[in-house]
Amino acid sequence: MTFLEKLNRRIETAHSLLCVGLDSDVERLPKRFLKADLPQFAFNKSIIDVTHEFACAYKINFAFYAGRGRSGFVDLGQTMRYLRREYPDIFVIADTKRGDVANSNEGYVVSFFDNFGFDAATVHPYMGRESLLPFLRRKDKGVIVLCRTSNPGAREFQDLKVDGVPLWEYVAKRVAGDWNENGNCMLVVGATYPNELARVREIVGEMTILVPGVGAQGGSVEAVVKAGLNREKRGLLINSSRGIIFAKKPDVAAQQLRDEINHYRVES
Amino acid sequence: MTFLEKLNRRIETAHSLLCVGLDSDVERLPKRFLKADLPQFAFNKSIIDVTHEFACAYKINFAFYAGRGRSGFVDLGQTMRYLRREYPDIFVIADTKRGDVANSNEGYVVSFFDNFGFDAATVHPYMGRESLLPFLRRKDKGVIVLCRTSNPGAREFQDLKVDGVPLWEYVAKRVAGDWNENGNCMLVVGATYPNELARVREIVGEMTILVPGVGAQGGSVEAVVKAGLNREKRGLLINSSRGIIFAKKPDVAAQQLRDEINHYRVES
Repeated sequence: MTFLEKLNRRIETAHSLLCVGLDSDVERLPKRFLKADLPQFAFNKSIIDVTHEFACAYKINFAFYAGRGRSGFVDLGQTMRYLRREYPDIFVIADTKRGDVANSNEGYVVSFFDNFGFDAATVHPYMGRESLLPFLRRKDKGVIVLCRTSNPGAREFQDLKVDGVPLWEYVAKRVAGDWNENGNCMLVVGATYPNELARVREIVGEMTILVPGVGAQGGSVEAVVKAGLNREKRGLLINSSRGIIFAKKPDVAAQQLRDEINHYRVES
Repeated sequence: MTFLEKLNRRIETAHSLLCVGLDSDVERLPKRFLKADLPQFAFNKSIIDVTHEFACAYKINFAFYAGRGRSGFVDLGQTMRYLRREYPDIFVIADTKRGDVANSNEGYVVSFFDNFGFDAATVHPYMGRESLLPFLRRKDKGVIVLCRTSNPGAREFQDLKVDGVPLWEYVAKRVAGDWNENGNCMLVVGATYPNELARVREIVGEMTILVPGVGAQGGSVEAVVKAGLNREKRGLLINSSRGIIFAKKPDVAAQQLRDEINHYRVES
């Protein structure tokens, strides 16, 4: 089963395009978790257990674990082990935004895909396709390239005009071209830019796009769904992190967002 | 003492612009180290002990430790502890090539600078200055921005023309501008592009440039030194990794490269 078959199967069985971001910043965890031996894992387990039925995917941003050193590393590893054991059909993304020379990227590929068992990882485009070949060669895994990021400062470089188009559009074209010869590429386009998302959809055909930035960052679910769906009414992974995991009732927040996405998905 | 004072003091006392890259790929370690409890640390210690007097800096690329999971993490941590304890005046770079939204970058800043105790870290420019503010605000630490990387595929995006100049040149201008308001920015320019290095030197004034790619990757030491020195005949950290650490005699290799750099430094 390819990574895309796994992803699309999960989209159908969970009837969901929702990705839940486990940005489990230890300073924001409810106090009862801080007493646990593995506080971030304990928190993640509690979130996963009540949100999994609504989630197509989970996304784990390593930055929120790195700050705790070896302890964070263990919490991250235990979270992955738990997901792989209890919910093996859920797609899990290593949100690591790596990008090194090819020789070095080999180490990250082993770490994310083989050791941790992630289904996909996010990467930076700046060093070019050649540098990312260790990722791109892995036909069984998704390679999610940063294209139009959701942060306020994204415009500084990503909107620069190259060959008459913004750099983010140029990146989308390259990734949809020979980068994707194994059919395993995806792109990141922030929810705060629905017009750009619609343009990326025109460029990349049926490719799946990871969309961060709904909820806390202010992106509109309706605009994202209407701009971003592919012809099969899929092709989107819409991520919410803080808006779900730190909600009073994470299960309700996850179900509501899943349903809201589906509402516009049916409408469009 | 700022990071730059520390760096320049070390350059003077070691009479060296040499950075030794501890790319300690476990598959390339001499067999005798594989029996150690902490094989990468044991190897690094052996390298550090014989090369430190010739090194201005060490650079640790996390990719070569990530592939070994928790064990690699421990080896990396022990290497840093050893460097901080035995050779606290040597500049140490976290070659991690990170770049996430600001909120996430906070975690990496804590990890690299506060927990591990690195003096500087490498970062991707693609998400813009705003995303990197958690790094840039750290006046006491160096922020080394990828500009013109040494890998064969670097041209794919970095040579794209924006405002009539290649993207790498645009990045250099931005970083030398308001990114550097705390005077803590540096740039990465590969040794394989001496013409580009000379142009970057024109743009960035006295800023220090990290130059990977001499030795194994084919960059000429003479060309790099002549193109890259600043007015104080410093402003360069010339990195060699495999060419030193996997040499038959790493001490001899380090001394020779340090001396070769100084030869052209005096000449130029």
